[in-house]
Amino acid sequence: MARINDHYQKLQAGYLFPEIGRRVRAFQERNPDARVIRLGIGDVTLPLAPAVVDAMKGAADEMGTPEGFRGYGPELGAEAFLVDGILEHDFRSRGVELSSDEIFVSDGSKQDSGNIQEIFGQDCRVAVTDPVYPVYVDTNVMAGRTGTADQQGRYGGILYLRADESNGFVPGPPEEPVDLAYLCSPNNPTGAVATREGLAAWVAWALEHDAVLIFDAAYDAFIQDPALPRSIYEIDGADRCAIEMRSFSKRAGFTGVRCAYTVVPKALTGAAANGERVSLNALWLRRHSTKFNGVPYVVQRAAAAVFSPEGRKQTGEQVAHYMANARLIREGLGAAGFTCFGGEHAPYVWARTPEGLSSWDCFDRILADAHVVTTPGSGFGSAGEGYFRISAFNSRENAEEAVARIRKAF
Amino acid sequence: MARINDHYQKLQAGYLFPEIGRRVRAFQERNPDARVIRLGIGDVTLPLAPAVVDAMKGAADEMGTPEGFRGYGPELGAEAFLVDGILEHDFRSRGVELSSDEIFVSDGSKQDSGNIQEIFGQDCRVAVTDPVYPVYVDTNVMAGRTGTADQQGRYGGILYLRADESNGFVPGPPEEPVDLAYLCSPNNPTGAVATREGLAAWVAWALEHDAVLIFDAAYDAFIQDPALPRSIYEIDGADRCAIEMRSFSKRAGFTGVRCAYTVVPKALTGAAANGERVSLNALWLRRHSTKFNGVPYVVQRAAAAVFSPEGRKQTGEQVAHYMANARLIREGLGAAGFTCFGGEHAPYVWARTPEGLSSWDCFDRILADAHVVTTPGSGFGSAGEGYFRISAFNSRENAEEAVARIRKAF
Repeated sequence: MARINDHYQKLQAGYLFPEIGRRVRAFQERNPDARVIRLGIGDVTLPLAPAVVDAMKGAADEMGTPEGFRGYGPELGAEAFLVDGILEHDFRSRGVELSSDEIFVSDGSKQDSGNIQEIFGQDCRVAVTDPVYPVYVDTNVMAGRTGTADQQGRYGGILYLRADESNGFVPGPPEEPVDLAYLCSPNNPTGAVATREGLAAWVAWALEHDAVLIFDAAYDAFIQDPALPRSIYEIDGADRCAIEMRSFSKRAGFTGVRCAYTVVPKALTGAAANGERVSLNALWLRRHSTKFNGVPYVVQRAAAAVFSPEGRKQTGEQVAHYMANARLIREGLGAAGFTCFGGEHAPYVWARTPEGLSSWDCFDRILADAHVVTTPGSGFGSAGEGYFRISAFNSRENAEEAVARIRKAF
Repeated sequence: MARINDHYQKLQAGYLFPEIGRRVRAFQERNPDARVIRLGIGDVTLPLAPAVVDAMKGAADEMGTPEGFRGYGPELGAEAFLVDGILEHDFRSRGVELSSDEIFVSDGSKQDSGNIQEIFGQDCRVAVTDPVYPVYVDTNVMAGRTGTADQQGRYGGILYLRADESNGFVPGPPEEPVDLAYLCSPNNPTGAVATREGLAAWVAWALEHDAVLIFDAAYDAFIQDPALPRSIYEIDGADRCAIEMRSFSKRAGFTGVRCAYTVVPKALTGAAANGERVSLNALWLRRHSTKFNGVPYVVQRAAAAVFSPEGRKQTGEQVAHYMANARLIREGLGAAGFTCFGGEHAPYVWARTPEGLSSWDCFDRILADAHVVTTPGSGFGSAGEGYFRISAFNSRENAEEAVARIRKAF
């Protein structure tokens, strides 16, 4: 008799964004004439940069010729032209030296941050911030690393580190022992950013406790202050305790193109049952080569084009556009009496709900009265209750219109 | 202390193809002037069809415009234009009715066949054929569903169904109870193909034992006899016991483009711990929406173009080209005294090693003496010992040259 994975039965409701999608579709069916502005799911809106489009088309042409055709890619999933660009522009330019076999190119940081737990033991204790990107938690639930959820949606066995106004939404390391800690900076959903000192405290803690940090830097391109760390490897010792994830999704508008990568340093090890230290790079390579088959060649060419002089200029302008939206949203809602956080080094503004509304009530009210889709803070964890997230990914006109409508509605 | 997933320590050596890659690289370093012909890894060689290239370029252009830009795709991972093509051309044309929410588009059948085990219980007993595509086994080892491997590389807890000359390399259902059975037809590596009666026996067995069949039909396009089933859903009752995987990799040369899909019928259920029947479609949707983020838009357009009149004609010619190679290899080696199987409805020829050589010794000898890369049968399981696989994916010239060189070497 084929038994199911019963851990799936512990999962709460649907994944957040499908639930938002269902509510928006229901609203639109009732209000077919409403022009809904979507500042909910963090999806980019600007067209791909010309340098990226040209690279994809050139690669498609190559694939149509006997000389230029490419089948399966290299074992680690990427061609040297892309990995070299990553090493040079994302790391060497920040003083970080990595080698090409520490870079694993994939089709998304969602996938990587969901899959990374597979190489760790079933009894590892996991810490996440609260609120948190739901994938970190849900994938550990599916893997059986948790108990059931309580009434607040918190799963037994996971340590939740409260990110709130008292700590600027950036919690420090816990007192109690934990084996794996997921960190995200600039943060989704709160838009908060970790300082060098804050990350150094996490690295020191991880080294002391033989813990591994899963550092999600998918939004690093939005950091405006060059003194803030973009990579955890800017902190000494992080190569012995941290895995880092980066993405082209937000920095270059690749949500519909799909390219990301994960860094697993060769200095990083975990403990086997017999006490032996095992290379996590070797384990991830085994996982990657067994369950993945590389990123499309045209996508690798597109991603490499992001590092070209034109690509850097064009995608830099996209980031600047979104960050100007973020300022406009933060300042506009602030002037209307909303208490706002984030949005300075991240494309997300995190706002307190007005009038003591719950997150979902606020979501429904903003949708009904302003025809604007936001994301309810409680969808990211119980400590997100009483907040909502607004994404800066939109046209200037829509960002302005959304702010005006929300101000009018409240 | 971060503990590793100790089940990885049970895995035997490297994944087969990286090991072949290492041996070929070593040979080439010693013999820099040798022109090596690669008939090992089943990777296509013909350039992409013009209809596919045009669709990709058109989609890249769309992505560069404000109106045509696409970010995240729909929840199930694919746009209607692709799913409609799949439903019409892969199923309705064969008399099979499926609905769009039973089709999950992904970036590869390797991924899907590796990931599908996640929705099943830890204590499910797994059956595979021997020889077998290693991913089915390795991913269950990683998930902890097996014991350690014996000296023949067989993992405790897995039931191996011997595919050999006595059953035409197509084993029937086992006597003993099993919960999940992986089937692949046309078969990788043996090139054998299941008949309608053979599949009907499996479906009847699965329904009787409440087992689930994982049916990998990645090579269906190579079936030459229209009377042979291409989909397991051509068998009555299969929608209540089978998951099917299909790929664009081999049928349309997409190994470097990455597109596949998995069918999970809504009628299919598994048993929860409390005895409740749970929809496997719902579980896979949860897995898909939590750990995957869709296939690139340009790739979806490319895959949809395979169903256009030009795309069907052009990719059909590619398949015919490879099948002519398969005949040439089968007949050429046969004339030289090799005993060959497969290659009639599949792009693989499965041959007995000559002179009682082991599979790896035969691999090394063909590489050293004929400068041809094959795949050692034992890499697919202990019952593959004494055989080697030759792929038909190459130019006519290379296929002819490889056969001539092998004939000369033995």
